[in-house]
Amino acid sequence: MDISGRIETTLKAAMTAATIHSAPPKLAGAMKHALFPGGARVRPQLAMAVALACGDDAPELSNATAASIEIIHCASLVHDDMPCFDDADLRRGKPTVHVAFSQPLALLAGDALIVLAFDVLARAGALAPARLAGLVGTLARSTGMPGGICAGQGWESECEVDLSAYHRAKTGALFVAATTMGAMAAGREPGPWIELGACIGEAFQVADDLRDALLTEAELGKPVGQDAIHARPNAVAQLGVAGAVSKLHEILGGALASIPACPGELALREIVRLQAKRLTPVEFAQYAA
Amino acid sequence: MDISGRIETTLKAAMTAATIHSAPPKLAGAMKHALFPGGARVRPQLAMAVALACGDDAPELSNATAASIEIIHCASLVHDDMPCFDDADLRRGKPTVHVAFSQPLALLAGDALIVLAFDVLARAGALAPARLAGLVGTLARSTGMPGGICAGQGWESECEVDLSAYHRAKTGALFVAATTMGAMAAGREPGPWIELGACIGEAFQVADDLRDALLTEAELGKPVGQDAIHARPNAVAQLGVAGAVSKLHEILGGALASIPACPGELALREIVRLQAKRLTPVEFAQYAA
Repeated sequence: MDISGRIETTLKAAMTAATIHSAPPKLAGAMKHALFPGGARVRPQLAMAVALACGDDAPELSNATAASIEIIHCASLVHDDMPCFDDADLRRGKPTVHVAFSQPLALLAGDALIVLAFDVLARAGALAPARLAGLVGTLARSTGMPGGICAGQGWESECEVDLSAYHRAKTGALFVAATTMGAMAAGREPGPWIELGACIGEAFQVADDLRDALLTEAELGKPVGQDAIHARPNAVAQLGVAGAVSKLHEILGGALASIPACPGELALREIVRLQAKRLTPVEFAQYAA
Repeated sequence: MDISGRIETTLKAAMTAATIHSAPPKLAGAMKHALFPGGARVRPQLAMAVALACGDDAPELSNATAASIEIIHCASLVHDDMPCFDDADLRRGKPTVHVAFSQPLALLAGDALIVLAFDVLARAGALAPARLAGLVGTLARSTGMPGGICAGQGWESECEVDLSAYHRAKTGALFVAATTMGAMAAGREPGPWIELGACIGEAFQVADDLRDALLTEAELGKPVGQDAIHARPNAVAQLGVAGAVSKLHEILGGALASIPACPGELALREIVRLQAKRLTPVEFAQYAA
């Protein structure tokens, strides 16, 4: 099965276990709405690519690791879209969870997805107990405080923002989780994989800032101009469009340079190159310096 | 160190790790507000009592297990108090997190606390890897779907409610987590400990229904009459006050009868008896049938 097939199969199995007939139906529906159909599944693709590059000797654990990261990502989108944050009506071209269901169900669906991610890890981790503590701890710290995506959102409530901590946490944390946990799932040390995740996370953030500034709501499938409306720090405001496009290319070069020697190094380089291409659509090229 | 000391020390260490100086300060404050000072710490006390009764051969893991359950409980209170659920201003005699901080910070604090619970388990679980998968999986399923406390809350959004699933999930799940995870932390099978947790959870729910119906806001430290206002199913509406008091005594008898043979059986019986006394204050005695 290819990477996408492995990810979707694992996500579907997790959701089936969480929403069997004894579950409250609306909350089950809200969770499914948040997870399917997915977006580009960028983070789990990256985790699987690294696990494969490292030998993928425990495929079930690689699958679970990739799925757990995507589930956390989707949970964070559900909560971010709620009225007390972005108050967004659209996500991936369809109504957000709180619009399609209700605010209480969106809050609960996010919570239930967060814990589902850990449940997925636990089930597969029973097969490779020595790797589980590292995976659970890394997922928790990438999600929570002091440096995970919750911390990133938390900086938006501060008057004085530590900008580098903000970006590292808000977008970077789950990309670093993807590369390091992908390696850990295959029994490798996480350290050498931090840089790759950090670079791709930063590139993703810059590309997102460019999309938010340049594309239309129809092209993006969600409201645009949100950074300007919420006065959020972003690369376009800081560097201008041309500067942000240059920055994006520079970071992606750094990502390729950071890939450690490993059995599947060449295949991974190809995946990162494809990812880079996806992050820099032709619409951006005209702005390049 | 006594049980309470072990619980508070573990909670404080977890919070310190989550809120070091690089963390966004307001979110750190919101998390501390939710966790300290605690209430009766009933669930972690129960988990520790069972771990001790089972030999407590990995004390760090017992501490982490008890703390993780309390952290999840506090996270659920933060989200339950938010305007889209109970819209409560008071909790344990002080402003709720969204009142003291803000709705975005309450939402994030709840999320960050949920993952902190898993982080606490992961850190201690590295010392006893064979026990970790069971602990993480049980905590996740007691919190999420299809039968955890999120599922319990989820039933409140349904027109047709499966009452027994509702009660089992909303209050029972974390009590069953306390007894079964307490046993697992000490290397024992969880199965024989389900009944004790279920009985204490049910007793706690009935006692809570009685308090909600009989006490004043000042006595309770939070708004009263909430069950009637939200038309939630509860034992007082179903059985009357005298019937609910009888039911409470009956359930607590069942709890004592369910305690399996184990090294610390006698001490555990004493703890359950004390707990029972706490759940049935003198105010209720006058209503007994």
